[in-house]
Amino acid sequence: MAPERLKPRPLKGFQDFLPPEARLRERIVETFCEVFRLFGFAPMDTPALEPEEILLSDYGVDANKQIYRFTDLEKNRVGLRFDLTVSLARVIAASGHLLPFPFKRYQVGKVWRFDKPKRGRFREFLQLDADIVGAQPYEPEVELLAAVHQAFARLGITGYYIRINDRKYLADVLQELGIEDSRAKDTFRVLDKLEHQGEEKVFKELTGQLLLQDFDSALEYERMQEVKVPPDTARELLRRTQDSGRLRGYLSGFLQRLTEEGVPPEKVRADASLTRGLDYYTGFVCELMLEGAESVGSVGGGGRYDDLIGRYAPTSPTGVGLSIGVDRLLAALKLAGSGSDSSPVAVGIQRSSAAVFVAVFDDCEVSQLAAVARRLRNAGIPTELWLKPGNREGRSLSRQLKYADRAGIPLAVIAGSDELGKSPPTVQLKDLRTEFGEAGKQIEVPIEGLVEKVKDLLSGATES
Amino acid sequence: MAPERLKPRPLKGFQDFLPPEARLRERIVETFCEVFRLFGFAPMDTPALEPEEILLSDYGVDANKQIYRFTDLEKNRVGLRFDLTVSLARVIAASGHLLPFPFKRYQVGKVWRFDKPKRGRFREFLQLDADIVGAQPYEPEVELLAAVHQAFARLGITGYYIRINDRKYLADVLQELGIEDSRAKDTFRVLDKLEHQGEEKVFKELTGQLLLQDFDSALEYERMQEVKVPPDTARELLRRTQDSGRLRGYLSGFLQRLTEEGVPPEKVRADASLTRGLDYYTGFVCELMLEGAESVGSVGGGGRYDDLIGRYAPTSPTGVGLSIGVDRLLAALKLAGSGSDSSPVAVGIQRSSAAVFVAVFDDCEVSQLAAVARRLRNAGIPTELWLKPGNREGRSLSRQLKYADRAGIPLAVIAGSDELGKSPPTVQLKDLRTEFGEAGKQIEVPIEGLVEKVKDLLSGATES
Repeated sequence: MAPERLKPRPLKGFQDFLPPEARLRERIVETFCEVFRLFGFAPMDTPALEPEEILLSDYGVDANKQIYRFTDLEKNRVGLRFDLTVSLARVIAASGHLLPFPFKRYQVGKVWRFDKPKRGRFREFLQLDADIVGAQPYEPEVELLAAVHQAFARLGITGYYIRINDRKYLADVLQELGIEDSRAKDTFRVLDKLEHQGEEKVFKELTGQLLLQDFDSALEYERMQEVKVPPDTARELLRRTQDSGRLRGYLSGFLQRLTEEGVPPEKVRADASLTRGLDYYTGFVCELMLEGAESVGSVGGGGRYDDLIGRYAPTSPTGVGLSIGVDRLLAALKLAGSGSDSSPVAVGIQRSSAAVFVAVFDDCEVSQLAAVARRLRNAGIPTELWLKPGNREGRSLSRQLKYADRAGIPLAVIAGSDELGKSPPTVQLKDLRTEFGEAGKQIEVPIEGLVEKVKDLLSGATES
Repeated sequence: MAPERLKPRPLKGFQDFLPPEARLRERIVETFCEVFRLFGFAPMDTPALEPEEILLSDYGVDANKQIYRFTDLEKNRVGLRFDLTVSLARVIAASGHLLPFPFKRYQVGKVWRFDKPKRGRFREFLQLDADIVGAQPYEPEVELLAAVHQAFARLGITGYYIRINDRKYLADVLQELGIEDSRAKDTFRVLDKLEHQGEEKVFKELTGQLLLQDFDSALEYERMQEVKVPPDTARELLRRTQDSGRLRGYLSGFLQRLTEEGVPPEKVRADASLTRGLDYYTGFVCELMLEGAESVGSVGGGGRYDDLIGRYAPTSPTGVGLSIGVDRLLAALKLAGSGSDSSPVAVGIQRSSAAVFVAVFDDCEVSQLAAVARRLRNAGIPTELWLKPGNREGRSLSRQLKYADRAGIPLAVIAGSDELGKSPPTVQLKDLRTEFGEAGKQIEVPIEGLVEKVKDLLSGATES
């Protein structure tokens, strides 16, 4: 039965990651997790699929429209998670009695948002969260940002900055302007678009003229109408969000502690118009920006959510968290590094996992050559043994070396019965980093001394 | 507005992982990935959500009924992936020209199956795959099993065995018995239930009597009716699948190479009735079993799928892969280790990430104590600084030490103005692993010598 030929494309807004890029992504995640562990955070994991009612309770109307929702085979209404924070709140409510407080967790997982795909904006992406539940400001905030700074430093990412704000100060501004508490969250959501859409559009939305276009149901339109503020107030609001003296006052102690933790003061930029789009934030909010890649948006963000857990439980421990958008960060690094070969993070990562390739020509020698590969692996050197495709072409040396070169493996071991039959047995060791096929870069080494020789040649230049 | 109180439960068949267990799971994944890199495998990632047509093309009727499918907001038919293999095939077809062959990849990701939840069987679980595409038997099979053996050894898992078979031998048996090729896959699928359901049930299904109960649509019923074999043949099939001389012959060379790679021969058990439930396997198949936890099912499995990529492309590179069911393995380890405190994997993992806790009583000393924490972290020692909840109770020493004890942190640093004001400044270092509150386990150490003293006390007994 000849099968129907399928188109091998992923869905729009979804991505495949092939080795060099996947390895870089993995390295970013490993580095962050390592640093978070160094600060005493412990890992946690929650399902990707949650009951719909859990997902719809905290993000707000804009976000809710982006949730992938459906009915499962048992007629439960379910959805793919929009972030990792709401699940954390659910777990704290369910299992808080099993946890020590303050509870410090990190979590890595995919999230899904039905958004318009563009550069740096995907419908499925990997998030890396760290959260501290049950501790008052602002030491937890300092710790989260210090850990991020340290992880960025380990990855060689120095060209970044942190936008910070506190929603409480903005709420004060709203109150002064006579905007009621009940409208504050909707106003935050509109102001959140300032960075992307500019003042004019946000002004129009604040005054109600653009609301209909964004919201398709009559109910939502009516709800948003309530947000309308008189034009003069909207103008005043925009002006004052960009110049908050209160915020500057709050910042001084916070900045001092951040500086002590190694985050240079010039990395931190206060911006009273920053709100973050989600409803659950109650105080401190922040966004991480990569210099030269601002156009892809923030590569991370977070804030304090002191009421979130109260959705489930009578008492609500305070919480503060930070989320790295790993795939956005990857896209931003690519953009920031384009035009130069020396994107700091890319160096040392553009190789396959193996450092040594062991060629195989003859079935009879497989056992001996496998023993050579084993010797290297036992010494911690990632090694690839040629897995001989069955035909004659698959056994040619030139085909094998072309493979190793293409896979980016720096060294090759080549040995036939001549070398293996010597006493003591030897192999040829070839450096593939030189021009492919260049002469004079091949030496004969006794198997006994191979590990040492390989380590010499790699001399710390290759990742292990 | 008082929010409606929600029930904080995950969906049925879905799991939350809290720290000690989440850390063990993370350790399992890290260990496997490390070993696969040592063998030269490179990472890859694909979306969790795939077009429905991709998902429905290769698993077979039983599996297809377990796929979470729905229509997204753009009216695309989509589904959550059932495994990581079909996505690999899609990527090879789409991006094969960018990859070196043989292509060796590992991938870690969640998969979803709408199955009946029971011990070790979840609706969402983490899979860890390694695959080799474009290499002939049986060196790739040897390499995959050798890597798994090495990862298990590093994790302290020695009580396991590998069931292996080759579908080709079973196909020969079917042919001898006059069962047509077109019915072979359906017969494999029925035989796959031998382990779980026993001979009697499988016999009944082979003879057609149980088919109706399992398949609800008339179309599927008719299709399965074709599989019916005469009762005598079914009996003969069951007998012969359990005693295949051909399989034993094939095994000798394979076993020799496995033994050379360090996998003891007694770990490998040939079983001609093993088929694996999925349609895409064409030759070698295997399952990993944990001794004493056979009731949860296999903790991993895999096989050769030489036609899978042909669904998308005119030429189909051969493929062989292996998948570890991380959450099943975790459940099996728990079961196998129950009754004894010395489950080998659990040792050394039942702690929070931090090795040292730094207490804080007074706002004025935060900077100095944070510097102590930084000194420890800079030396690579995971350290937690008390993030002082704002009330008086949050600052009591007994509350802080209770927290550290509960979080499983072995050492605590305690210092107030007395200690910090000395010249040179000192801290009290307390060993919390002794009976809580026991006297005599607290020593005064100058800050200069703290890292060394902490390393002495931990002396390799704690994970970092």
